[in-house]
Amino acid sequence: MTNKITERVTRSFESQSMMKTLGARIHKVEKGKVTIEAPLLPLTLQQQGYVHAGLTFSIGDSAAGYSALTLLPEDQEVMTVEIKINLLAPAFGELLRAEGKVVKHGKRLVVVTSEIYTFKDEKKKLIAIMQGTMIPVPLKP
Amino acid sequence: MTNKITERVTRSFESQSMMKTLGARIHKVEKGKVTIEAPLLPLTLQQQGYVHAGLTFSIGDSAAGYSALTLLPEDQEVMTVEIKINLLAPAFGELLRAEGKVVKHGKRLVVVTSEIYTFKDEKKKLIAIMQGTMIPVPLKP
Amino acid sequence: MTNKITERVTRSFESQSMMKTLGARIHKVEKGKVTIEAPLLPLTLQQQGYVHAGLTFSIGDSAAGYSALTLLPEDQEVMTVEIKINLLAPAFGELLRAEGKVVKHGKRLVVVTSEIYTFKDEKKKLIAIMQGTMIPVPLKP
Amino acid sequence: MTNKITERVTRSFESQSMMKTLGARIHKVEKGKVTIEAPLLPLTLQQQGYVHAGLTFSIGDSAAGYSALTLLPEDQEVMTVEIKINLLAPAFGELLRAEGKVVKHGKRLVVVTSEIYTFKDEKKKLIAIMQGTMIPVPLKP
Repeated sequence: MTNKITERVTRSFESQSMMKTLGARIHKVEKGKVTIEAPLLPLTLQQQGYVHAGLTFSIGDSAAGYSALTLLPEDQEVMTVEIKINLLAPAFGELLRAEGKVVKHGKRLVVVTSEIYTFKDEKKKLIAIMQGTMIPVPLKP
Repeated sequence: MTNKITERVTRSFESQSMMKTLGARIHKVEKGKVTIEAPLLPLTLQQQGYVHAGLTFSIGDSAAGYSALTLLPEDQEVMTVEIKINLLAPAFGELLRAEGKVVKHGKRLVVVTSEIYTFKDEKKKLIAIMQGTMIPVPLKP
Repeated sequence: MTNKITERVTRSFESQSMMKTLGARIHKVEKGKVTIEAPLLPLTLQQQGYVHAGLTFSIGDSAAGYSALTLLPEDQEVMTVEIKINLLAPAFGELLRAEGKVVKHGKRLVVVTSEIYTFKDEKKKLIAIMQGTMIPVPLKP
Repeated sequence: MTNKITERVTRSFESQSMMKTLGARIHKVEKGKVTIEAPLLPLTLQQQGYVHAGLTFSIGDSAAGYSALTLLPEDQEVMTVEIKINLLAPAFGELLRAEGKVVKHGKRLVVVTSEIYTFKDEKKKLIAIMQGTMIPVPLKP
């Protein structure tokens, strides 16, 4: 993993206003693996005071998508074709972390998974898993 | 469909800070069907300037979940067990609309789908479909 | 819909030994829509005597895949990228019918759904829904 | 893991005519993990001569379901609520193996995954991944 890949992922990430709105940030970039974190803010809750599935999905999908991007040529971007989330437990605590990784880098598609954890008092808990498909698209100039 | 169901969905919806953050609002409530709309705001985009999959997912999931809620007893809430999204086209325009509906109201689980559309110059375009499972949970007092 | 498309789907279907093993047959072919039926045989049950999810999946997946094939050029075949099934009710009766259809025929991928029904004493019952992605591949000579 | 659990899984498995039709057999049973194998028979192929997605799905779903069963009380059975498969590569070779495992054993639902491999000339290749939800049901007497 070179600094070049980290820079590339960071540059793309920072141009996503949605990630800013949710307070998310890149935690770690490796070849085929990207970790994204988001604080559990009052502005991203659902009606029972737990984390909204939309936040969990958003950072899980981004971690998965960027893990695919680390394996693509410089002139390509990545889009989500489809992705599925299973929510394992109501999410609360201080921090949400999504660990995305590439399962299969095919010629035409990239299959990815994400595991999403909460942290509360240093305790890590798996709260969702995702499985999906990304597709390379030409980078818009 | 009574006003009571609309009030109930609206009350729950308004306690979701995530929906406020995304600028979403309830468009229509019927028995087994709920429609939610969100403006395409600069703060919910991805790196290419299209709507972030996280926004599409969030309003699609909420529309599906609330369509389930319209069929449940007063002392129950609903949570997402799992849901899958297929993104059909890059989303842009002025407005996003998610039409959620109940496919099967079982004893223990509710199976739902959502169709998500964009509107641009009065033209409606299907940009994503979702299929998932909701579970009733006791309403927290 | 021309006879040519029906012939094409039938030819491909008949070369699938799995469909023969399960006793399945094509019921109807239209542009973007294919219906497949299978008798509920003693050899395709699960441990409680209901239809095995594997049979439901197999005919649902095939109906969806062939609905995509009806829209592709003659020199292409189709493969399943991914597909999800929600089982709505235990399946029993005399006949299983899967109605596959194309939701979006994109340049690189085809998004499809299937609805699977049982028939018992002339009564039709929805027992599963599927949502997935097909990819065109060159026809092997 | 006791012999009792193995016996229980085997007894249920043997009452599934579908598994016999596909030539599948249980390879290994552990608490929360079950492995199922199936030979690549001429009768379970698709139109291009590869393994039919229906076979891959059937043994993957069964491995996942039985991994859930190993954690349930004696008076319960398990049914598939929903499951998704991503096919990573065309499957061929001599043997198919599905490794199912429990990701989350909740009070009302069990979340599971399966990895499906082919074996050819001693070489193991991941050809599909699955993610789904199982539900406990009372054992029919």
